[in-house]
Order: sequence, then C-alpha cells, then structure tokens
Amino acid sequence: MQFSGLYKVLILTASNSIGIVSAKRAKFDTPLVFRSGAVLPRYELVYETCGTLNADKSNAILICHALSGHHHVAGYYADDPKNIGWWDNMIGPGKPVDTDKFFVVSLNNLGGCHGSTGPSSINPETGQPYGSGFPVITVDDWLASQARLADLLGIRQFAAVIGGSLGGMQALQWSLSFPGRVRHVLAIASAPHLTAQNIAFNDVARSAILGDPDFHGGDFYRHNVVPARGLRLARMLGHITYLSDDVMADKFGRELRSGKFSYGYDIEFEIESYLRYQGDKFASYFDANTYLLMTKALDYFDPAHDFGGDLNRAFARAKADFLVISFTTDWRFSPERSREIVRPLLHNRRNVSYAEITSTHGHDSFLMEHPHYFDVMRAYLDNVASEFVK
Amino acid sequence: MQFSGLYKVLILTASNSIGIVSAKRAKFDTPLVFRSGAVLPRYELVYETCGTLNADKSNAILICHALSGHHHVAGYYADDPKNIGWWDNMIGPGKPVDTDKFFVVSLNNLGGCHGSTGPSSINPETGQPYGSGFPVITVDDWLASQARLADLLGIRQFAAVIGGSLGGMQALQWSLSFPGRVRHVLAIASAPHLTAQNIAFNDVARSAILGDPDFHGGDFYRHNVVPARGLRLARMLGHITYLSDDVMADKFGRELRSGKFSYGYDIEFEIESYLRYQGDKFASYFDANTYLLMTKALDYFDPAHDFGGDLNRAFARAKADFLVISFTTDWRFSPERSREIVRPLLHNRRNVSYAEITSTHGHDSFLMEHPHYFDVMRAYLDNVASEFVK
Repeated sequence: MQFSGLYKVLILTASNSIGIVSAKRAKFDTPLVFRSGAVLPRYELVYETCGTLNADKSNAILICHALSGHHHVAGYYADDPKNIGWWDNMIGPGKPVDTDKFFVVSLNNLGGCHGSTGPSSINPETGQPYGSGFPVITVDDWLASQARLADLLGIRQFAAVIGGSLGGMQALQWSLSFPGRVRHVLAIASAPHLTAQNIAFNDVARSAILGDPDFHGGDFYRHNVVPARGLRLARMLGHITYLSDDVMADKFGRELRSGKFSYGYDIEFEIESYLRYQGDKFASYFDANTYLLMTKALDYFDPAHDFGGDLNRAFARAKADFLVISFTTDWRFSPERSREIVRPLLHNRRNVSYAEITSTHGHDSFLMEHPHYFDVMRAYLDNVASEFVK
Repeated sequence: MQFSGLYKVLILTASNSIGIVSAKRAKFDTPLVFRSGAVLPRYELVYETCGTLNADKSNAILICHALSGHHHVAGYYADDPKNIGWWDNMIGPGKPVDTDKFFVVSLNNLGGCHGSTGPSSINPETGQPYGSGFPVITVDDWLASQARLADLLGIRQFAAVIGGSLGGMQALQWSLSFPGRVRHVLAIASAPHLTAQNIAFNDVARSAILGDPDFHGGDFYRHNVVPARGLRLARMLGHITYLSDDVMADKFGRELRSGKFSYGYDIEFEIESYLRYQGDKFASYFDANTYLLMTKALDYFDPAHDFGGDLNRAFARAKADFLVISFTTDWRFSPERSREIVRPLLHNRRNVSYAEITSTHGHDSFLMEHPHYFDVMRAYLDNVASEFVK
C-alpha cells in the first residue's frame, strides 16, 4: 500500500508527457521579401504540432522561440527518447498549455540552425551554404513566414501566441502585424525593445564572432571550420545575463574547483567551469551566423520605431487580449520592461493581465517550473480554452 | 569689469592644478616572494608625488589605482601638458585630496604596463619581455611592494590610503596587512570580494584574450603582434559594467548612427560606436598580460578567505578609521557590497563613516566630480588633516 502514492506519481508523469512527436517540414515557393529589401525565393520551415486541431480550428496556439530555441517544444522523438522538448514542463496534457485542449504549433524560425532554412542551409542557386548571403532578418520577417505556416495548416486565427524573451517579442508583434489573427498574446520576460545596455551586450557577442579568424566573413562552411572561440564567448556572456546575480552566488559563490588558488589561467572557480562548459557545448552545435541573425532581430525589434517612438500609437492597432509576465530578478528584461508593454496596452484599453513573479532565477525563470508562474499561465489559458470548449 | 569673474575663474583653475609633475623610478633589489610562491628577484616601480612631506612625515597619502590606472594621478608633464592625471579633479591644491596639506604618493602597480616592472618589461635574466613568465599577482603582493616604496620614502605610516574599485580593495588590505602603517582607509565603489557574477565577467574577458590567436600564450611580444581583438572585447565588456543601464539609455538610447537600419554588421547604433571606439583605443596601448593579471588580482582578493569566510574575524586586526563610499547606480560593486565592508568594521568597533551617493553614472561615478561625493571626501580628509596641521 505504501507504494500507491509513488505509483500514482509515475502514472501522472507518464500521462503528463505528450509522448512521441515528430518534426515536419513545410516548403514555401513564394518569394519572401524581407524588411531589409532582400528576397528569399523559397524556403522551408521545420515545425511540430501536438494536441488536436478542433473542427473550427479555433484552438491553435503558436509557440515562438527565443535566441537559441527551436521547434521541439514538448515530448520526445521515437528514435531519441532522451531528446525532450525545451518547454516540456509547460506544454502537455494537463499542463498549463494543455494539449488536451489546445493544438500547439511550434517552429524553428527562418534563419535558424535546427532544420529551417538558414545560413547553414544549402542555397539551391549556388549549391553552397548561404553563409554571409543569408539576409539579415527581423521579427516582422519571422511573422510573415509564421503566418504562411498558419495558412498551410488552415489556421486563420490563433487562440494564443506565446513566447518568452525574443519569443515574447514575436508574440507581441502578432497583435500588431496580424491583429485579426490572434485572440490572446502571452509575452513572458520580454520587452518592447532593447535598451542601449542590451544592444551593447549583443554587440560584444557579435564582435567576438565577427572577429574570430575562423568566421571567414560568415562563409566558414567552405573552410571546414567553425568560429567556435567567438561563439563560445558569446554564449558565456549570454549566460551571465540569463542568470541573476543572486542565483549565481547561491549556485557557485566563490567556490574553488580544487579547493585552493592555483595562480594561473586554467579553470579555478566553479563559475568559470560552468560558463566554459556552457560555452563549449553551445559552440559545438549552434550556427554562428544564426547567432548573429538572432541578436540583430533583437536589436531591431521596436514596434514604436515607425510611430516616432510612441508605443501608445504603435499598439493602437492591437485587438488581442494580453498576459504579460515578468520575474523580479530578471535584469536582462526587468519587470520595468514588462510594465513598458503593459502601459500602452492599458492606454489603448486592451484587456491586459500582468503578473510579476518573485523568482531568484533571473531571465532563465521563464523556462523553469515555478508554481506561481505556472498557476498564472494555467489560469489564463483555462479561460482562453473556455472560449471554445463547451 | 564684466571680465573680472572670468579672470577669477582662470586664476582659480590655474591654482587648482598641482601643475607640472614628473614620474620617478624606484629600484628594489631585494627579491619579492609572491603569495603564489613565485619570486621576483628585482623590480622597479614608477611613482609620482605631489605636495610636501611634513617634518614628521605624518601627512602622506597613498593613492591606489584600479584595473587600468597608473601613477599619474594629478597635474601634467612639462613635455606633455595635455596628459593630465586621471584623478586631477580630486587631487590638487584646495581639492578634496588637498596637496597644500597632504603629500600624495601614487604608483603604477607591479605587473602594470605604465612603467613599473610588468609582463612587457625586459627580464634582465633573459633579455626578453617577461610575458607568460611574469608571476600571477595578488593584492597582498602589491601591498608588499607598496610598503617597500613607503620605506624608501621614509613614510612609516600613511595618514590615509585611498582607492576606488580595485584600488579600494588595496586600501582595505592596507588596514589588514599593515595595521600600524595606515591611520585612515578610504574605500570607494569597492567590495570585500568579487561575486560569482563579477568573476564570470572577468572570465569572459580573460577567455577573449587567452583565445586570441595573437596572444601566443602570453609571449606575443616576440611575435611582434598584440592580441588586440581579445583586449578590445575585454574592454568593451568592461565598459558595459562600468556604466549604469540608465546612463547608457540617456547617453545613447537606441540612437542610430545613420538615422536608419542598415541590416548588416557594421556599426549601426551609437552605443556600438562608443563601445568599439573605447575597445580599439584601449587595445592600442594597454598590455594584455597586465589585463589578465589585474582581473586575477580582483578574483583572488578575499580577506575572509583565510578566516573561513568570516569577514568579522578578517577585520579584527584593523586599527584604522574608515570612510566607505558607494554609488546608487553602480551595479558592478553595488551599495550592498559596500555595506558588506561596513558591517564587519562596525562589528570590530572601528570608526567608520559610510556614504551612499545618489549618482546616475554607475561604477564610473568614482572618477567623476559629483558635489555630494566630493563634499564627503573633502570633509573627511579635512578632519584627517586636522590631526597633524596646527
């Protein structure tokens, strides 16, 4: 009898995963004109879905990913069961993004390096990777490509578009680029634009990649090298901004790897070990050109840009309802940055809920299972579901 | 008559500068044993003095510099009148560090690149620059070399030791290494040790330098190159941490250099222009090995290390009085880090004054002329002067 509790937990865990998923490919042969004026004649998007699209196709949710994310958000692959989706804690049966109610669509953004057409893809016109020839992309351009994917899936309007960080920016932009195609926007740990400090960090990361002798102006593929040193530095720096000062202090403090000072330049403090490991791991699989593109998309995102810097005017065309969530120790996109989103929405009399979650984990909080955060997500999305579930 | 005001200002400006100064060299032939166990058989320190040492040598102040500082703190050189000392606003006749009252000593720290023996100096035993052979140095080691300089000048006890940032750490260490040799310690924008986040930023900076192919394991001198890319990145990153988010927003915001997006990787935002300029300038004159040494000295500084992490015990041997100053927007060494210094001093019943200055300029505030900050410095040092000036 004493095992019945454990048994229930095991059942719950199993039933909590969406289970086996598989990636699909969508091919688009209509040229995409970028905001920069560049044209991509054709491209492919890799995407996944989970849950079931209801009869009137009103229960679809789009998940937008952040800098290093991709389409694999939940479940696992039949041939790779350890490869669990990056937001599996949030998405699944009975989870806040409940796949018993919603049809969840996720994709790898254009310019990415997880299967969608990007700098490392073969340009059919040259037979070589795009490399430096891949156009600089903006959130607007992603939106255009995501809307085409929605068309392909027969989804006229998303019940919700959800994203954290750069993903939150895409979610916000959905309400502006396609006001009629999204009923709810959930923007988590996000901002209405980058500050000078945010851009500065991105510029250091980019400078590390651009200055790596192995970058070869973006065409490193043909030299059979990768600018691993630059990418590693970029990721190390990124990690500092994802974590709070407090959580770094708690996790690593001044802990020494060998217990004493070694008076040299090898790894000495545990935090160095962590950062270098994260940097090396990232540099072993992520594409340097994609990293550059993602940081530029972040820099450019600025809905107020075309409205003389006035966010009130920028959000005037939004029709959706909004949930905005921030985390107290997030210094990359602090709660104040989320309030900058809330204010113009209130100004425009949108329905907007705002939650500031007390969390020690900094910007990374948006990826973590935090009871208050998950309760807010669940409650909001249960209401969204009640709009179409009888 | 209308010019009399201007005339007075001109007179005041002239009388406000200490005027012409010149660097001196001190040679030490007694071997210095570093905390690491390494031994430097002989070394030179370049230093400057201003003001007049009084008869009983009780009016001497030592200025300790931070990461990129040096001995030239005030005045200018006869053959280079534009080369004004880095703390000339603070030090001079009638200034907070009043050279009419005090005899000010400043030096370039051992391991530096402004004239004192460091990695770029010629090792007399090899006829080549020390390079990678220069020992990793700690604040303790600097203190030992500074005490020898004091001996040479006949200064048994400093009226005060003053420093900002890493300089503040040296000032604090004076009260611990040589409790009888310092009456007042002024630690500005400093901390009792680095946090994991501080170390993390240093490690990214070091990784940029160590990974630069032009670094050649520290012996780049013999290859006639400098690891400019790495040093540039390190400085760019440093600058982000010296400035507050607010001051960056005020100074640069999202200002575009050409007024519009260029969709490429050249300089686009003004903040990028500023950072890259600062990085290039620094890389053109600063020694990469010195940069590494300075960041390591920062990482290692931890007076509590030998006392089981207990700052109360660490500061038990301090005899000096203290002035601790922090700046509200300094996120590199926040006011809380200064309070971490104040608490163990109070615990040990030291006389300690603490001022938290409201300033928008982040960590860089300690170098700036801010009325409240300067008033506090002046008032405190006037009291110090009253101990010996009749």
